[in-house]
Amino acid sequence: MHLLNQQELTSSSTDLETPSGDVAKEQKPAQDLTATALAYHGEPRPGKLEISITKPCATQQQLSLAYSPGVAAPVGAIVSDPEAVYRYTAKGNLVAVVTDGSAVLGLGNTGPLASKPVMEGKAVLFKSFAGLDAIDIEVEAESPEAFVDTVARIAPTFGAINLEDIAAPHCFKIEQALIERLDIPVLHDDQHGTAITIAAALQNALELQGKVLPEVRIACVGAGAAGIATLRLLTALGAPKENILLIDRQGVIREEERLLHPYCRPFASSTMKRTLAEAVKEADVFIGVAAPDLLTVEMLKSMAPRPIVFALSNPDPEIDPTLAHRVRSDLILATGRTDYPNQVNNVLVFPFLFRAALDVRASCINDPMKIAAVQALAELAKEPVPEQVLEAYSESHLGFGPAYILPKPLDPRLREFVTAAVAQAAVKSGVARINHL
Amino acid sequence: MHLLNQQELTSSSTDLETPSGDVAKEQKPAQDLTATALAYHGEPRPGKLEISITKPCATQQQLSLAYSPGVAAPVGAIVSDPEAVYRYTAKGNLVAVVTDGSAVLGLGNTGPLASKPVMEGKAVLFKSFAGLDAIDIEVEAESPEAFVDTVARIAPTFGAINLEDIAAPHCFKIEQALIERLDIPVLHDDQHGTAITIAAALQNALELQGKVLPEVRIACVGAGAAGIATLRLLTALGAPKENILLIDRQGVIREEERLLHPYCRPFASSTMKRTLAEAVKEADVFIGVAAPDLLTVEMLKSMAPRPIVFALSNPDPEIDPTLAHRVRSDLILATGRTDYPNQVNNVLVFPFLFRAALDVRASCINDPMKIAAVQALAELAKEPVPEQVLEAYSESHLGFGPAYILPKPLDPRLREFVTAAVAQAAVKSGVARINHL
Repeated sequence: MHLLNQQELTSSSTDLETPSGDVAKEQKPAQDLTATALAYHGEPRPGKLEISITKPCATQQQLSLAYSPGVAAPVGAIVSDPEAVYRYTAKGNLVAVVTDGSAVLGLGNTGPLASKPVMEGKAVLFKSFAGLDAIDIEVEAESPEAFVDTVARIAPTFGAINLEDIAAPHCFKIEQALIERLDIPVLHDDQHGTAITIAAALQNALELQGKVLPEVRIACVGAGAAGIATLRLLTALGAPKENILLIDRQGVIREEERLLHPYCRPFASSTMKRTLAEAVKEADVFIGVAAPDLLTVEMLKSMAPRPIVFALSNPDPEIDPTLAHRVRSDLILATGRTDYPNQVNNVLVFPFLFRAALDVRASCINDPMKIAAVQALAELAKEPVPEQVLEAYSESHLGFGPAYILPKPLDPRLREFVTAAVAQAAVKSGVARINHL
Repeated sequence: MHLLNQQELTSSSTDLETPSGDVAKEQKPAQDLTATALAYHGEPRPGKLEISITKPCATQQQLSLAYSPGVAAPVGAIVSDPEAVYRYTAKGNLVAVVTDGSAVLGLGNTGPLASKPVMEGKAVLFKSFAGLDAIDIEVEAESPEAFVDTVARIAPTFGAINLEDIAAPHCFKIEQALIERLDIPVLHDDQHGTAITIAAALQNALELQGKVLPEVRIACVGAGAAGIATLRLLTALGAPKENILLIDRQGVIREEERLLHPYCRPFASSTMKRTLAEAVKEADVFIGVAAPDLLTVEMLKSMAPRPIVFALSNPDPEIDPTLAHRVRSDLILATGRTDYPNQVNNVLVFPFLFRAALDVRASCINDPMKIAAVQALAELAKEPVPEQVLEAYSESHLGFGPAYILPKPLDPRLREFVTAAVAQAAVKSGVARINHL
């Protein structure tokens, strides 16, 4: 992969994969970007994907192997042994990127048809970063149950299912239902890719700030897919629930005051605090997966010493990064943007989670695998950064520190490093059907 | 496409696409073919398909067009105008090859997983012959209604649906239900691809035998997808029902004697005849889409002068071709095999039906389009055969006559000739959304 230089990077201040997926602010006029993007997607060949043939099929003899009568041989093999499907078809490298179009980028419920460019784009990332064959499937379903049924019924086609841009709260039950029904990996990247990246960044940020996860006070604003999944992962990693406050549009999610959605309930607090400002006061960690400009200067000033702020709303973070560093010189900050240090970008994770799962034919992507990804990402950020990456980002120096708590997306070591860690965890936790690599 | 020579052609006497899809008899020992086919399908890269990226995506700027934030532009365009999906995504060239695995080749109800090599193979043919991006979808459905619901819900993804290897009789209601529900073309190739090819061959055979469709007596054995669709098409083309006898395993399908499946009912006869032998006596046309060795020497002898026999069971036809020609020197014969003249092979039709439908964005593949395909195929067989095709089949002469009533599958003129005719019919019959080509 060609690693770009800084000029290319900032020529349009744009993001790769971002947690909340909103449209990033461009330095180019928006009209230019729209026109460029439409031209990119359009004629002479609409879209971004095609299906290619991987075996010779020019002669009649070759065609008679690809189809009748030769094709009866692999069919018979699979009839005798269903696992043979992985030996004779593309299933073992095939990921479905599946959506109902209910939470597309920052555009909301566009429906499945209009989501297709995003899903094709996700498939491009799978192929580009991990060599996975990914095809997008847009589902028009009248209910979450209908969506689950549909995806479950087409599952024989695929090696794994990536759920994408499905709105909370129904994304949780959809993912859970499919995990229960299927024997192939199912993962909602908006939940877990984001959570894993945040957890890795947080692990490094805490180390740099001289703090530990079991002791820090965490305020998380945004109770959707990313927020819930992140808190679930952080609690699994040792953050006590009593140290966590979850805030949504109505304020701090508290035990008494409202009808709580089951997914929020575990993070409902017994606190007396009601507002974001109250929640953030003396907090060590702010995680924003919500909307722009929620974290004011006053709120930031009120945070504990050596605060950590992940302002991940896209394109506009919960607080302007430059401003935030001016207000707090002891701050470690991450955003979803490419034009600031510490980009929290799911592309650091999802291609390699799936690559590993398919490499070892894991039946699922379980917690040990996710945690292995967290560790691998966090560790890789502590390794010396190779010349190639420095050139790609036109940096004279990049290395572990407050401005480098995560690897860069175009770091070529990610694929091997993260994949290997996740694959190992799959084997060790007993969900791999291939134990040798 | 490399056109093969005779040596390649007969080195393994194998078929391309054949109507009933059974395994063709090989001149090589069966074990050799099995091993070769398994090796072909296997490592180092299992299967026959991959997903490829069609736009540049190496740099961060390019990725920011393919995905966030640039991808918001085509999404917004489609939200404003759903037809824009054809301008900015691969939908307009994307065909789903969909099965429930209930009637796979000659292997029967293998289920969806084991059918995957066949479906991948069909996708190979779509891409190879017509440049269509085809992806296979294997559906595990507990009922035809569940199958229909599933396919209808994923339809936003695709430009057209090819139903494949779905057993009669539920294939008929499945196809009909999907045609009614969807605004994209839906076609069950085992029905219509076969019917169209048979109708074209019959048109030419009748001309050569000095007969006309409205007057000939037709016996069709096999009341499944191919048989029913063929009789429907032939009656639409002018064959009177009273001249047709449909025979299944129990004998001639007659009005009185049994509980008739609705799909057979239109072809139930008031005849006194009960057996295949009785049905075939003095018949002008025998169409076999059933099983080997059903048409005996005695039966063939009893047919009318200048008979036409389409013995399309695969790999073994309803009668041995060499024997048949010895018994009746006035016979015109077609089979599904490559090693005899007059191969009835759906690949003459389905790639170009779909190519045309997608080229003009037809909402369906209707009867005028199917009939246009019949005419185009029949007409092309009457054109002088170019050198390229002669070389491909190592023939010194090929031309319209009893041994050449259909074009050859590898004839490069098919793509333009059949596609153009079908596209024109779509436009003329008012189902095209693109009227200029």
